[in-house]
Amino acid sequence: MTLVEREVYGGRPVTHVPVARVRGGRVQRTSDAVAAEEPLEIRLDGERVAVTMRTPAPGEDAELALGFLLGEAIVEMDGVARVAECRSPARDGGIADVRARPGTSPAEGWQRRFYATSSCGICGKESIEAVRVAAAPLAAGPCVETSWLSSLPDALRERQRAFARTGGLHAAGLFTADEGLVLLREDVGRHNAVDKLVGRAAMEGLLPLGRQVLLVSGRASFEITQKALVAGVTVLAAVSAPSSLAVGLAQESGMTLVGFLRDGGFNVYAGAGRIAGV
Amino acid sequence: MTLVEREVYGGRPVTHVPVARVRGGRVQRTSDAVAAEEPLEIRLDGERVAVTMRTPAPGEDAELALGFLLGEAIVEMDGVARVAECRSPARDGGIADVRARPGTSPAEGWQRRFYATSSCGICGKESIEAVRVAAAPLAAGPCVETSWLSSLPDALRERQRAFARTGGLHAAGLFTADEGLVLLREDVGRHNAVDKLVGRAAMEGLLPLGRQVLLVSGRASFEITQKALVAGVTVLAAVSAPSSLAVGLAQESGMTLVGFLRDGGFNVYAGAGRIAGV
Repeated sequence: MTLVEREVYGGRPVTHVPVARVRGGRVQRTSDAVAAEEPLEIRLDGERVAVTMRTPAPGEDAELALGFLLGEAIVEMDGVARVAECRSPARDGGIADVRARPGTSPAEGWQRRFYATSSCGICGKESIEAVRVAAAPLAAGPCVETSWLSSLPDALRERQRAFARTGGLHAAGLFTADEGLVLLREDVGRHNAVDKLVGRAAMEGLLPLGRQVLLVSGRASFEITQKALVAGVTVLAAVSAPSSLAVGLAQESGMTLVGFLRDGGFNVYAGAGRIAGV
Repeated sequence: MTLVEREVYGGRPVTHVPVARVRGGRVQRTSDAVAAEEPLEIRLDGERVAVTMRTPAPGEDAELALGFLLGEAIVEMDGVARVAECRSPARDGGIADVRARPGTSPAEGWQRRFYATSSCGICGKESIEAVRVAAAPLAAGPCVETSWLSSLPDALRERQRAFARTGGLHAAGLFTADEGLVLLREDVGRHNAVDKLVGRAAMEGLLPLGRQVLLVSGRASFEITQKALVAGVTVLAAVSAPSSLAVGLAQESGMTLVGFLRDGGFNVYAGAGRIAGV
């Protein structure tokens, strides 16, 4: 199909952010490549079907929208006339609109089939602003020792019994320097693991989580960071990489964001003031 | 908060499935522990807010629902009276209902804030059935050599340039024995990577993907397996673990599902007939 129409486009899959790289007690200030993350609105004949957080790249928004609608059996390939993609660099967001061939109609009832995965809107900057407004200002938070922080992934893994058996569960752990691992939740979905942990913390009257460290076993996406911020988390650490939008949200809200916390080292992407010596 | 009400419950976070374990050309038939995955319907005062695919465990459905609604700033903890969770083992699905305190009201407009992440319903068995009906029957598919299959993750990684730089991108790759890696897409979201790949394949007239192998860099969840099935994929391989519902869908639809494809070995969870010698 050659019928991809493209308007203003400038998205790149990788962006660079300043980082403090901590290895064996040494701190190096440098820049790090992170995966770009922005909202994409998927439309069918001009009507919004879904918003997904995706990595922008020219041509791939049209692919994503088409693949999504095919995969959900909302359209069939024979019924597609063209796909238009449009990205506004000023707004940090994109739109991809799949246009049906005249005379064809999408699967009935698709409007009722979409739930879950929130997104505040179509624009990355607006997403950050909306979350910042919804969340209360963060506490001063703890001052975290680098050696203690480096020890958390092993402590999490030791208690992740189900993970050890299946290799298929994400974990979220809540730590304090005094008590160690105070709360652990696991799930096939990493968002679910964080939701379970925040729900349990709320039941126990622990919110806001201003003096704890929240460690997630995977990556720090925008949505994970959003959930942490709303729960009042001042220090969010991820075993793997953060996304560009997660870094932006942490920077603008004053949250400490640590990534690649493994093998005795870590990177600080925002809020370095809460890490002793960094 | 002690106000969690629980009805029938029997969910366990881990379930066991038969597996053919292939290591260095040797095949061992055994059973494997996989992370359980089932739909959970999150309700607010009896009204459906979201359906998420989660790992069931007694007490954690209530936590997940509460944490989700707090994290999305739809309710505040002061406004929550109680959370009821209910799981029906016969239907393989759960419901968690957050009840607001009389006189409080949820954030306005929450109904408009949820998009994306489809789910066919509340019941695991119904989810599988709905996807099977939506998808066309699979082709006979290729006969895959174990040594070739084992070589695919390295081939994927070599071409994943963005991943190498950021550590934060999921990949989906389409392979044939004749042509090698014919299509590669990367994204911060693993669903997005598969959607992009299927969308590009559709544009190039390649659907259904009956003679190719689809390799994903992460885990094989129900939704990844669903997207693959609708695209006609006969052989789905994942570098990491599958979920219980992914295994169930592959078994019932005749798809070959390979997990833990790394370090020269792999596990076959369904459709072993397409792997030579297994």
